[in-house]
Amino acid sequence: MTMYYLGVDLGGTNIKAALVDEQGQILQEASRPTNLPRPAEAVCDDIAALCRELTAGRTVGGIGVGCPGTVDDRTGRVLYSNNLAWADFAMGDYLQAATGLPVRLANDANAAALGEALVGCAKGTDSAVILTLGTGVGGGVVLGGRLLTGYTGAASEPGHMVICDTPDAPLCTCGRRGDLEAYASATALIRMTREAMQAHPESGLWKLADPDTVEGRTVFDARDAGDPVAREVVEAYIHWLAVGIANLINIFYPEVVGLSGGVANQGEALLAPLRAQVEPMVFGAAYADKKTRLVSCTLGYRAGVIGAALLAAQ
Amino acid sequence: MTMYYLGVDLGGTNIKAALVDEQGQILQEASRPTNLPRPAEAVCDDIAALCRELTAGRTVGGIGVGCPGTVDDRTGRVLYSNNLAWADFAMGDYLQAATGLPVRLANDANAAALGEALVGCAKGTDSAVILTLGTGVGGGVVLGGRLLTGYTGAASEPGHMVICDTPDAPLCTCGRRGDLEAYASATALIRMTREAMQAHPESGLWKLADPDTVEGRTVFDARDAGDPVAREVVEAYIHWLAVGIANLINIFYPEVVGLSGGVANQGEALLAPLRAQVEPMVFGAAYADKKTRLVSCTLGYRAGVIGAALLAAQ
Repeated sequence: MTMYYLGVDLGGTNIKAALVDEQGQILQEASRPTNLPRPAEAVCDDIAALCRELTAGRTVGGIGVGCPGTVDDRTGRVLYSNNLAWADFAMGDYLQAATGLPVRLANDANAAALGEALVGCAKGTDSAVILTLGTGVGGGVVLGGRLLTGYTGAASEPGHMVICDTPDAPLCTCGRRGDLEAYASATALIRMTREAMQAHPESGLWKLADPDTVEGRTVFDARDAGDPVAREVVEAYIHWLAVGIANLINIFYPEVVGLSGGVANQGEALLAPLRAQVEPMVFGAAYADKKTRLVSCTLGYRAGVIGAALLAAQ
Repeated sequence: MTMYYLGVDLGGTNIKAALVDEQGQILQEASRPTNLPRPAEAVCDDIAALCRELTAGRTVGGIGVGCPGTVDDRTGRVLYSNNLAWADFAMGDYLQAATGLPVRLANDANAAALGEALVGCAKGTDSAVILTLGTGVGGGVVLGGRLLTGYTGAASEPGHMVICDTPDAPLCTCGRRGDLEAYASATALIRMTREAMQAHPESGLWKLADPDTVEGRTVFDARDAGDPVAREVVEAYIHWLAVGIANLINIFYPEVVGLSGGVANQGEALLAPLRAQVEPMVFGAAYADKKTRLVSCTLGYRAGVIGAALLAAQ
């Protein structure tokens, strides 16, 4: 008998859910607006309703939920979520009582990383580090098929690894300067693009956007159109991202580093120069018989629900 | 019947070996000079002789060896060791043929970290990061009782995590600038002390040492004697070490971070200000119900042989 699992990706805007089989294939999807602000219990009631809707008489082994914020899967508690405005909520117990199913929790970036590691860009490997280059830099580490969650459940925040500890380094929303998120998020790329525009009124960047309408892709488009200012920004961005990735390779030496999020949509235009920068930064690279593969993630926005469901299957 | 294991700590100067029980207790120790340069096989013949000497009729389950350099425990090969001048040597096979015992290999810093994690400063915990502050910054990560070794066996080189990527950051022997080793090794502390002496002929540091005789402890001694220049150096050193440790906590959130090596002999004089610096650098520290403990290692130079033996027992 095939066993199915429910994966939930709880976001500040939408609750996405999917019925997933043990191979990570989605059978059916559903979603509802999160409708914040409202009590955690009300959000969980909607999650339970989505789960019942998707189950529809099938045999379901459990529910996995990816949540923004800090969760402790061992206790089933959301310790803190800025996006949801939750603090120390016993989500696992509440959802288990509402559905009668066992519940597993993960940070949302971690759930997505588990999906990519098990059935996406790192399928079949023993170790993967997944970085999401979006508003922030999210991350997840999967070793031997299991998420690295640490003592508190809050492990795997590579975005808050400082790579340039100087007083004038850019400030991160976490309050510190010079961490990977301050250099390699889409937000950071947009900030660097804007700064270059202000400094270079002659730049071709102005043909593609105003400072207010700059997106992550703008500087890549201007670079492709031959603008030297844009080329410098892209090179600086790739350098910082390479420093962060090389640090993670020197720490984990994973089989795969996978990139997701808006900036990663550049594909090989980003990956090829990135690999060239990362490689000489890897300690002992000259003697290694095997190299970490640096690739794009493959599951897109579905990584979260798939990873959450596969967590429930563990 | 009690099972014993042999642990070997292979250094550039000495081969240390011990017979160890499953609880990590040493029954007997022995050592010989490594006598480099000589062929890898000759060194292994001496290791085998030491092992026979220590076995003396007891039931031994296997041999673990900690080697300087990059090893791949899955294939039993030393991929590269600068200290030993070995490249791609099948040490596991050779030593197994010479002794008739199964052989496990680890990097020497990793072997010591495993010892500290299992029976030393992090005994009874589920996750530990061990840093050795010596000539370089060595490290090992133990998760769920197992060493993190990565895809190639070369994982856990936190010393080569860049924390200050600027063109004028200090140069590491690995060829890159601004990594943790360039800021937090004993070598780096001595360099910083010398620089402060040159810049401050009035400093009390000159009463304790010449630039040629500076040791890691010199600047701590001068600080304790009230020298303001020494206080600044100690504060800078602790700051850089804190940045590196906080990065590792943000990545692993381990239950324990243990420090060993000469600088760590300062004990609480180092640890107390270090904890105060690290704590606010930890992402989400305000919401964490549990904190990483920052402690001194407890096994001293025996960590290597004990950890190697316990690796053989796994």
